[in-house]
This record gives sequence, structure tokens and C-alpha cells, in this order.
Amino acid sequence: MHDVIMIGAGPTSMAAAVYTAREDIDTVLLEKGVIGGLAAITDKVDNYPGFPEGIEGAELADKLQKQAERFGAKIELDEVQSVEKIDGGFKLKTAIGEHEAKAILVGTGSEWKKLGIPGEKEFYGRGVHNCATCDGAFYRDKKLVVVGGGNSSAQEALFLTKFASHIDILIRGDKWKASEVLVEEVSKNDKIAVHFNTTTDEIIGGEEDGLPKVVNVKATKEGKATDFETDGVFVFIGLKPVTYFLDGSGVELDDYGFVKTDDKLMTNVPGIFCAGDVRSGATMQIASAVGEGASAALSIREYLENYDREMKSEV
Amino acid sequence: MHDVIMIGAGPTSMAAAVYTAREDIDTVLLEKGVIGGLAAITDKVDNYPGFPEGIEGAELADKLQKQAERFGAKIELDEVQSVEKIDGGFKLKTAIGEHEAKAILVGTGSEWKKLGIPGEKEFYGRGVHNCATCDGAFYRDKKLVVVGGGNSSAQEALFLTKFASHIDILIRGDKWKASEVLVEEVSKNDKIAVHFNTTTDEIIGGEEDGLPKVVNVKATKEGKATDFETDGVFVFIGLKPVTYFLDGSGVELDDYGFVKTDDKLMTNVPGIFCAGDVRSGATMQIASAVGEGASAALSIREYLENYDREMKSEV
Repeated sequence: MHDVIMIGAGPTSMAAAVYTAREDIDTVLLEKGVIGGLAAITDKVDNYPGFPEGIEGAELADKLQKQAERFGAKIELDEVQSVEKIDGGFKLKTAIGEHEAKAILVGTGSEWKKLGIPGEKEFYGRGVHNCATCDGAFYRDKKLVVVGGGNSSAQEALFLTKFASHIDILIRGDKWKASEVLVEEVSKNDKIAVHFNTTTDEIIGGEEDGLPKVVNVKATKEGKATDFETDGVFVFIGLKPVTYFLDGSGVELDDYGFVKTDDKLMTNVPGIFCAGDVRSGATMQIASAVGEGASAALSIREYLENYDREMKSEV
Repeated sequence: MHDVIMIGAGPTSMAAAVYTAREDIDTVLLEKGVIGGLAAITDKVDNYPGFPEGIEGAELADKLQKQAERFGAKIELDEVQSVEKIDGGFKLKTAIGEHEAKAILVGTGSEWKKLGIPGEKEFYGRGVHNCATCDGAFYRDKKLVVVGGGNSSAQEALFLTKFASHIDILIRGDKWKASEVLVEEVSKNDKIAVHFNTTTDEIIGGEEDGLPKVVNVKATKEGKATDFETDGVFVFIGLKPVTYFLDGSGVELDDYGFVKTDDKLMTNVPGIFCAGDVRSGATMQIASAVGEGASAALSIREYLENYDREMKSEV
């Protein structure tokens, strides 16, 4: 039985692991996707404190991983499917097998929401994307549609102008929900056209050189059906907390599906802690996720100290 | 009137300033002591996520400062003496003059506690110290007394063995309150002798080459008066939140004198926010302070947006 298993190996868990592993707490991180989480697939991180000129997301993720591993944390690629209370701790069923731990940190963060419209699933990864850093370069001198009106949409659209010849941003509401700096930058960029009061209805495929590709987005702009000719679609309509493996664990979620914690970052289930973008009240900032990871580690340490004391007194 | 004044220029405020200044929020930091706060006078910071091999405290502080200033934050050396609610914001009286701001971030952190025994004040800075990084090198091949039983005491004593020939650690309680790693390292170090159940009673001065110096520490070890011959004393008996300038501001403190906040890091006085080591519930970790600074910045942004809307609707 491990001391602590951290679910997800993003900035939250890696910061927590720096603390726990450094204190000789046996620490395992289980990651189902990308080590470094959303940070690792972010182009440039300008506001993680400590890097005056900014740092590439992948490089920051790499530094976090090295630091956690330097102190002895183990990172494994595996997907947690369920968490179950057992005597003296928890049993985690994973894609590969099973693990046991005295304490759990839920640090799975959030994933991009889907539009849920025809064509989205069909062309996912082949014309429909959620990561400009990963897939933007495929659209050199091409036309793109970006869906969403928040910070990510603005930021990623700006990044995509490095490649694309023209970008239509489709925003359901009548104004931006992004920061002023970004909105200003977008409005100054003559590669970008912003369309408010516009819902995205369908992604239409066609063919190029015998291969399927996205050719058109059908939308409704101010009540009128409108076509946006395009080569690809990037969807940034918000994030959804990753908690499916908590079904049946008894861990309480808030109305939006985020994990509720007390001021020690413990959930309603003693021994299960939570921090970062999956936590109710999260700010979706790397700095905050890292800070919460560190704080959660101190709470986990305290929990494990009490655990050891209780085990000894039972003998 | 500034948008936001941050009191203290440690990691908390500098992280917050990276966020606010980047969003074109007019941001001023007022620091009465060292820019970078306690972080700046820490020898090596091993657990601030992002630096796999650790980083010197002074270097980290410098990076944080550069990053905040890069986005336009202004850091001034001045001491805030009081905070008063005025129409549309707050008035701060300082050592040099006055400032006004729509919102305030209290990020003053904590200061080292004093023993309050004879000789401590008299020899402060000349034999009695709170900062091993700053003053340790004066004690090359000398004997030292370190007072305190927590992480800082252990950590700083270990650091001081670089210079000192022998260190007596005096601990009031019957055991360490430091982390296991540190306690183990201390116990392995044959330059250090640990004395439990020992209260420090008086610091005795003498003379060397015609100059006053510390020569002895009078203590009570297990009920018996005991002398510790020494050349200097380093006191690490805990931290005290820096809040004196909040007297009369109406800001609520907890039983230990730390500033109480809600989950948006706002105090009971709307417009006054608080984060980092001065906040009730603080973990005293740079990572957590930085994370809270970032989170507080988002709350301040939201507060200022509402403020501007209200001002406009009043016109």
C-alpha cells in the first residue's frame, strides 16, 4: 500500500509530489494522458511567477516533472477508473490493474467541453481540435473557425494567426468574456473577424486530394443561417472537471461537477484530498494549482502522520 | 487614486502584481523592508515548483520582481502605517506620505518572533540574529546557539554548520516539531547538539578586542540552570503576522492575529484582500503564497470591474 496516490500528473500533483516525496512519503502519480496536463500543451506561459520572460508550457511541465522525480516521486501512465474505500485506505482500479494507497490526491484538472453538434466527433483530430499549440501548424495559410468567447478562445485565436490566413471567431453571446488585454489584441489583428450572437450548428466535411476534411461550418448569426467556409475548427467553449472515476466513491461534487473541499483541501471523504482545476472554486491558473498542490501536500502529510499514530496505537 | 495598492512586496504581492499589471490594472507595491520578503533572505529554496535543482531565495525574489515590473507594476520602499476607508476606496498613510487606492491587497507576510529575554534587544544584529543566510558567515569556526524546535530552526542550524564549529540547539518542548528529513539530517550532523526541555533565559554579553559581543546563554535545562558558552545566538521560534497597520481599519483577525478572508481571499471589508503568510490558514510556503497571490489578483480584477461599472452607473 502506497502512502499517497495522486490522480493526474499536472502542475497540481507535481507540486504536491515535490513536497511529499521530499519528506520521504511514498508517492505515485497516475496520468491517463499528457504528463504536465493542460500546462504541457500550452504554448507560452507568461504568468507563472518565477519566469520573468515567460516559459513554454512544455518546458515548465518538464521542470515540474524533473523536480518531483528528483525527490523520488514515481509517475506512471495509467487511467484510474474507480476509487473505493478499503480497510486502512483506498483501492484504485485502473486500466492496467489495481493500486492501494493510504491517501489520495485528486489532481485531474479539467478537460475541454465539446459542442455536441454533428460533425464534431467525426472530424475530431482531423479538422476539429482543442489545442492550438498541438495542431495549429497544420493550418499554414488556411482559413479557420474558432468557437468560444472566453480567454482561451481569444488567446488561442491570436496564436493561430501565426499560421492561418483568416480566422472567424464564433461567439454565442453578445460580448467577450475574455480579459481586456486579449480583446484589444484580437480587435487589432486584421486576420481575425469576430461574430457575436452566433451559434455553431454543424461541421460539414468534404474532400481534398481524396482525403476527408472539414470544409464548412454552418452557424446561426443573429437569427440567420450563415456559412463559414473553413479548413478547420478549434473549439474553446470552456472546461469540464475530470471526475468520472469518483462515481461511487462518495466524494461530494458541487452543482457544476467540481470536487468540494474544506479549507485543508480535504473532501468529505477523509483521506481523499483535491486541488487544482478540478476543485470547486478553482481559478484555472497554473500558479494557483501549484500553490494548492503544495498546501494539499502539507494536509496529506498531517493526515498520514495521524494515520501512522492510529495504526501504532491499534497494535 | 491607484487601482490597487499591495502592502508588502514578497512573493504573494509580486505574483498578484504579475496578474494585475498584465491586465493593465494600475498596481503599486509598498515594501517597508526587503523586496522579496522572507523568500529573499532564504538561502536555498528547494521546493518552489519550476526549479528542479532548487534556486537561491534572492534569485527567486529577483525573478519575481522582474516579472512584476515587466508588466508595469511599481514597487516603492515605504512603510504603510494605517488604512482608512474613504469615498470610493482607501487612504493609506505611510512613513513618507499618503496614497489612495480603489482596492488593497495585504501581503505583508510574517516576521520572526522575539524571545523577550534580557540581552536579546541589546545584542540584536550584533550577536543575536534571525537570518542565517544574512549573518551566518560572521561565525566561521565559532560556537553558536540556535533557539527553536521547528523546521526553520533545524534548517537554519544545518546551514550554519557550514560556518560554525559547534551548535547547541535549545528546544523548549520535549521533541522536534520539524519534518522528519530535517530531524534526521540534524541528528546525523556531529557539529550539532540538541537540548530538549530547555528554556532560554538570558543572553550574556562580554567583550572581545574592546568590542561588546555575546559570550554566553543562560538557560534552564530539565529544571537545572545551564550555561551555553557561545559567540552568537540565532532565534527561530516562529512567525508573527504583520498587521499593525490594520488597527482601526475594521479588518477582522483570527485568534492568532492572522487576517481572516472568505474563499475569494477578501477580508470582511469589501475591497481589502489578503493572501500569503499573513492570512489565516496560511501554510507558510512560497508556492502557496504565490498561488494565493494569483488567486487574489483574479478576485481583485473582478472587484475592480464591478467598481468601474458602479461608478459609471452613478454618473
